[in-house]
Amino acid sequence: MPVASTRVAQQERSRATQARLLEATVECLVEHGWSGTTTTVVAARAGVSRGAQLHHYPTRAALVTAAVTHLTERRAAELRAEAAALPAGPRRLDRVVDLLAAAFTGPLFVAALELWVAARTDTELRDALVPLEARVGREMHRLTVELLGVDERRPGVRETVQATLDLLRGLGVANLLSDDSARRTVLLHTWKRQLAALLPPDDGPPRSGAGPGSEQP
Amino acid sequence: MPVASTRVAQQERSRATQARLLEATVECLVEHGWSGTTTTVVAARAGVSRGAQLHHYPTRAALVTAAVTHLTERRAAELRAEAAALPAGPRRLDRVVDLLAAAFTGPLFVAALELWVAARTDTELRDALVPLEARVGREMHRLTVELLGVDERRPGVRETVQATLDLLRGLGVANLLSDDSARRTVLLHTWKRQLAALLPPDDGPPRSGAGPGSEQP
Repeated sequence: MPVASTRVAQQERSRATQARLLEATVECLVEHGWSGTTTTVVAARAGVSRGAQLHHYPTRAALVTAAVTHLTERRAAELRAEAAALPAGPRRLDRVVDLLAAAFTGPLFVAALELWVAARTDTELRDALVPLEARVGREMHRLTVELLGVDERRPGVRETVQATLDLLRGLGVANLLSDDSARRTVLLHTWKRQLAALLPPDDGPPRSGAGPGSEQP
Repeated sequence: MPVASTRVAQQERSRATQARLLEATVECLVEHGWSGTTTTVVAARAGVSRGAQLHHYPTRAALVTAAVTHLTERRAAELRAEAAALPAGPRRLDRVVDLLAAAFTGPLFVAALELWVAARTDTELRDALVPLEARVGREMHRLTVELLGVDERRPGVRETVQATLDLLRGLGVANLLSDDSARRTVLLHTWKRQLAALLPPDDGPPRSGAGPGSEQP
């Protein structure tokens, strides 16, 4: 079936071109910020013609939202694989928090923050990002619940997972201009102890009493 | 003493001009972001001549760092006054957290975030902001300790105050593109209960045992 195999080869080339464009976009955002991430610069960096770039992603907003979506999915898959390789036991929670903290101080977080801040004052970008923000937020929450191996139906677990992600986002911002890793390590050390107390593992015994933090949203 | 009184009047005019420029700078950052905050736009908004603007703040970096410094000091003074007006009692901690959360979702936070993100890829701005970031961080920490009325020499208090500020920073970012207040209210409700348990007031009994979180940085 020469027609079908040609089509398959074309689709594969398309996917490879798209992947190069999306990775170049995130690299550009990290290196030059939103203002320096033009479609021309990204196409050149990816080694893709302007025509091909415009064919796949007709606008700058389309390009950057596709980049964040694609890289978030890839990073989530990597996090799942890294977490799956962790040994079981009491230190597992600590290592999962370390993996998440690395994600919130890595290039994808920086690229996303560039977009989030730019979108505040750029209507086209904002319209493209708001639905993506909600989706990424939900995915990140679900992934964290899964990696921590906790049961969200238990009282307080949902808020504790949310607080962990908001804390990590705050720590990511604190790391933007200077290396905040020493302070972050100390702070997360304490946080891990609190998490261990607040988040009984899925198969563990339930906390005694509902107590504070039992409110469901 | 006509010469002295003329000098005093000139100094007052200078201070008024500076204040107008600094407030216009923060307004511009909130409305147009870093890219739209040029010295020309700020001077026009403040109703100040280009010459006067350049006399007081010769560079864009000097203007925006002075603006963040000035407004942070003013906002800190306002927070102290608002906290001083709070009634004593068990709900005081909750109201202090509400005041801090309002600061981290207000215009000054947004303006500062614009600068922090822009400084990542702008060497001149970065050189100006890094020392300011450290100072603002220390001031904010000291202010929070003071408003919460806690004793930082007690084990775990320092980390808990830090975690609160990092959490609030994360919540501020989550509020950039959409109104996150409903989720934030629920999350902070739980956080306040945890804070009340972790942070005994200055004159309260010490926590029983050091336990987790007793590490000093």
